[in-house]
Amino acid sequence: MKHQDLIDACQDDWQAYTHHHFVAQLAQGSLPSTAYLHYLKQDFLFLKHYARAYALAIYKATTLEEMRRPLPSLQALIGSEMHHHVTYCQQWGLTESDMEAEAEDVGTVAYTRYVLDTGMAGDLTDLFTALAPCAIGYAMIGERLIKAPDTRIQGNPYASWIQLYGGDSFQHDVQTSIQHLDELLEPVSLVSPRGQQLINIFRTATRMEIAFWQQGLDAA
Amino acid sequence: MKHQDLIDACQDDWQAYTHHHFVAQLAQGSLPSTAYLHYLKQDFLFLKHYARAYALAIYKATTLEEMRRPLPSLQALIGSEMHHHVTYCQQWGLTESDMEAEAEDVGTVAYTRYVLDTGMAGDLTDLFTALAPCAIGYAMIGERLIKAPDTRIQGNPYASWIQLYGGDSFQHDVQTSIQHLDELLEPVSLVSPRGQQLINIFRTATRMEIAFWQQGLDAA
Amino acid sequence: MKHQDLIDACQDDWQAYTHHHFVAQLAQGSLPSTAYLHYLKQDFLFLKHYARAYALAIYKATTLEEMRRPLPSLQALIGSEMHHHVTYCQQWGLTESDMEAEAEDVGTVAYTRYVLDTGMAGDLTDLFTALAPCAIGYAMIGERLIKAPDTRIQGNPYASWIQLYGGDSFQHDVQTSIQHLDELLEPVSLVSPRGQQLINIFRTATRMEIAFWQQGLDAA
Amino acid sequence: MKHQDLIDACQDDWQAYTHHHFVAQLAQGSLPSTAYLHYLKQDFLFLKHYARAYALAIYKATTLEEMRRPLPSLQALIGSEMHHHVTYCQQWGLTESDMEAEAEDVGTVAYTRYVLDTGMAGDLTDLFTALAPCAIGYAMIGERLIKAPDTRIQGNPYASWIQLYGGDSFQHDVQTSIQHLDELLEPVSLVSPRGQQLINIFRTATRMEIAFWQQGLDAA
Repeated sequence: MKHQDLIDACQDDWQAYTHHHFVAQLAQGSLPSTAYLHYLKQDFLFLKHYARAYALAIYKATTLEEMRRPLPSLQALIGSEMHHHVTYCQQWGLTESDMEAEAEDVGTVAYTRYVLDTGMAGDLTDLFTALAPCAIGYAMIGERLIKAPDTRIQGNPYASWIQLYGGDSFQHDVQTSIQHLDELLEPVSLVSPRGQQLINIFRTATRMEIAFWQQGLDAA
Repeated sequence: MKHQDLIDACQDDWQAYTHHHFVAQLAQGSLPSTAYLHYLKQDFLFLKHYARAYALAIYKATTLEEMRRPLPSLQALIGSEMHHHVTYCQQWGLTESDMEAEAEDVGTVAYTRYVLDTGMAGDLTDLFTALAPCAIGYAMIGERLIKAPDTRIQGNPYASWIQLYGGDSFQHDVQTSIQHLDELLEPVSLVSPRGQQLINIFRTATRMEIAFWQQGLDAA
Repeated sequence: MKHQDLIDACQDDWQAYTHHHFVAQLAQGSLPSTAYLHYLKQDFLFLKHYARAYALAIYKATTLEEMRRPLPSLQALIGSEMHHHVTYCQQWGLTESDMEAEAEDVGTVAYTRYVLDTGMAGDLTDLFTALAPCAIGYAMIGERLIKAPDTRIQGNPYASWIQLYGGDSFQHDVQTSIQHLDELLEPVSLVSPRGQQLINIFRTATRMEIAFWQQGLDAA
Repeated sequence: MKHQDLIDACQDDWQAYTHHHFVAQLAQGSLPSTAYLHYLKQDFLFLKHYARAYALAIYKATTLEEMRRPLPSLQALIGSEMHHHVTYCQQWGLTESDMEAEAEDVGTVAYTRYVLDTGMAGDLTDLFTALAPCAIGYAMIGERLIKAPDTRIQGNPYASWIQLYGGDSFQHDVQTSIQHLDELLEPVSLVSPRGQQLINIFRTATRMEIAFWQQGLDAA
C-alpha cells in the first residue's frame, strides 16, 4: 500500500481536517486573533512532543540508515524550528516563557501522546503512520491555499503561515517524508489486517488533527 | 508529600472534575441517556488502555514486590472488570462488538495516552501520579453521592453507577491505591522541582478527566 | 514462515544451545553442584525480567484478545513460578534473600535485556521471537532427556529438573506458545527482509542462551 | 550525591574495569591484534546502541533544555563518530560491511541493552547513571595512560587510541557529561534507597564494561 491509500480510506475525516473552518478563515484572514494565538501557543507545545517522536524513531531503528533518517528532522525541530516559532510568535506578542507556561489543551495532549504511544507500542511503520497526517495535511493545505485564487495574501495577517506551508522548502521536505512512508508501507497489503490497522492509526491521528484546529476556534 | 498535596495544588481543576455537570445530572437521574451511553462506550475503550498502564507498571518494576503490586488490578481489569462492563452495558443495549467498533473520542485518547506516555517517559511515581485522579476522583464522587441527601437512588437509571463507585469494595480498593501512592510520594518534597513536576502531572490528568465527562455531555 | 524456519536458519547455534555440555552433564548427574547453584540463582533473576517481558506484551497489545493471551504466563510467573523456584532452591540451601542479593551475571543481563529492548523497540512479533528460544529450547531439551535411554534419573540430583521440563504440563504450555508464535509469523515470508530480521533476533537470543549455560559451567 | 560517590561505592569493580589487562596490554602495545580487532568491531556495534540511548534521553525529556542537552552527543555519534570509527578501522583492514555483518558478542549485548532497558524502565537519572561508567572510565583510563611514564607511545600500534581518549577534546566532553550527571544526582541522598539503587545501576554497568574488555582478550 501507499500513503494515498491511507488518505483514501478515511476521506470524510481527511476532508474535515484539511478543509476545517479554521483553515478557511485563515485563508480569508477572518480568523479571530484569539483563535490564532491559542493555536500558536499549542503548536509550540506540540512541537516539543513532535521532536520526542523523532527521537523515538531513532531509538527504534535497527539499521544505521534508519537511525540517520530522522536525525535532520530532530535537529531542525529542536535546533531551529522551535527557535523560529518563538521568533515568529514574538510578532504576536508571545514570549517563550508565555508558551512554556501555557497548559496543554486536550487536543494537543490527544494528538501528541497518541503518536508517541502508538509509536512506542508498535513499530517504526506505526510511528510514521501516526505522524503522517500532520506533515501531509499541512502540505496539502499549504499548496491548495497558495494556489487558490480566492486566498487572500495581501493584508492577511496569516499570510506568512500560508507562505510557510505552501512554500517550496516545506513542500520538498514533506515529499521526502512521503517517499519514506511509502517505502515503509510497500510490503503491507491494503486489505490485510495489518493494512487495516495502519488505516485505523492514520484515521485516529487525522481525527486528532481536527480536534487540534477546533480547539483553536473554541478559544475565540 | 502526600496525595492530598496533589489535590490541594489544583483545587480549581479538581472541583471542576469532581463536581462536573455530568456527575450532578447522574446523581439526579437527569443525564440524557445518549450522554451516558457515549460515556459507557468510551469507558470501555478507556479500560483497555488503563489495563495497559498497569502492565507498564509491572514492566517498570525493579523489585519483586513492585511487580506483584499492580498484578491484582491488571488481572481484575482484563479478567473481570471489562467483562462486567460488557454485561452491564448489555442492559443498555450495547454489545461488546458495538463497543470495540466505537471510535475513541478525543478525551479518551487524551487521558489514556497521557497516562501511558507520562509513565513510559518517567518513572513509577510519574505513572501512578498520572493514574491517581481517576481512582481518587471516582471514589470521592461515589462517596459523596451515596451520602448526599439529595442524590436520587430510587428510580434513577444511574443508581447502579453510584452504588458501584460509592460501594465498600471500590472505596476499599482506592484506599489501597492511595496508600501505595503516598509511599511513592513520601520521599518527594512538595516544594522541590520534582514535587512541582508531579503536581503538573496530576493537574494535567485531572484536566483530561474533565474533558472525559464533557465529551459525554457533548454527545447528548 | 513458522517457528521451525527460525530454528532451521540457525542450526549451529541451536545445536550448541540444546546440546550444551551443561545439559549433557545435567542428564548424567555429573554437573558440579556449584555450577547448578549458580544457574539456579541466575535463573531466579532471569525469571523476574522474563515476567517483565510478558507485562511488556500486554502493554504492546492492541486488541483485548492480545492483552488476555500473555496474562496467564504473567500470573504464573509472578504468582507461582517464582514461588516454586524459591521453594525448590531451598532444597539446595538457597534462601530467597540469597537470590535477591545475587549480582546478575553477564549472560543473565545479556539475554533478559536483549529480549526487553528488542520487544520495546520492535513489535509483538519481535518480542515473542526473542522469547521463543527459551521456551522452545527447554521443551526440546526436556523431551529429549526424558526419552533418552542414557539419561540417568535414579540417583541423579538433577532428576527433578528433567522431569519438570520434560513433563506434560511444561510441554503442553510450550505447544500453546508455539501455536501463538506461528500465528504471529504466518504473514511473514521467510525470504523477506522482515523474515531475515526475525531470524537474526532468534539467532541472537539463542546465542545468549548458550552464554547462560556457559556461565553456569564457568562458575564451577 | 555526586558521581564520585558512585565510583567510591564500587571500588573493586571500578578497579577491575579501569585497570583491566586489556588496558594494560594496550598501554604496552602488547595486546594481540586479534583482541584489538574484535574490540573494534564490537565497539562499532556498541556505538549504534549508545546513540539509541541518547535518542532515548531526548524522548524522555520533559523540558526543552533537557531535550537540547543530549542532541550534540547524538549528532556526533550518528554523524561523525561512527564515520570516524569506520575510517579508523580501515587502517586495520576492516570495512563498514565487515562490522555491520559482525554478530554482537555477549558483553556487547549485555552492556548496551542494560543501559537501554534501565533507561526505559527508569528515569533520566537512571539512564545517565547507566551510561556513566563508559564515558568516565574511558576518560580516567585515557588520562592515566597518557601521563604514565611507562606507557609506550612510540611504536605502539594502539597509540592513537590512547591519544584519542587521553586527548583534550574527549576529556573536555566527559567533564561536561560529569557536570550534567552531578546536577541530576544532586537531589539524591547517597544513603537513601534511591541512592543505593543508582549505585547498583552504576556497579552493574561497570561490571558489563569489564565483560566488554574481557571479550576482547577472549577473542585472541
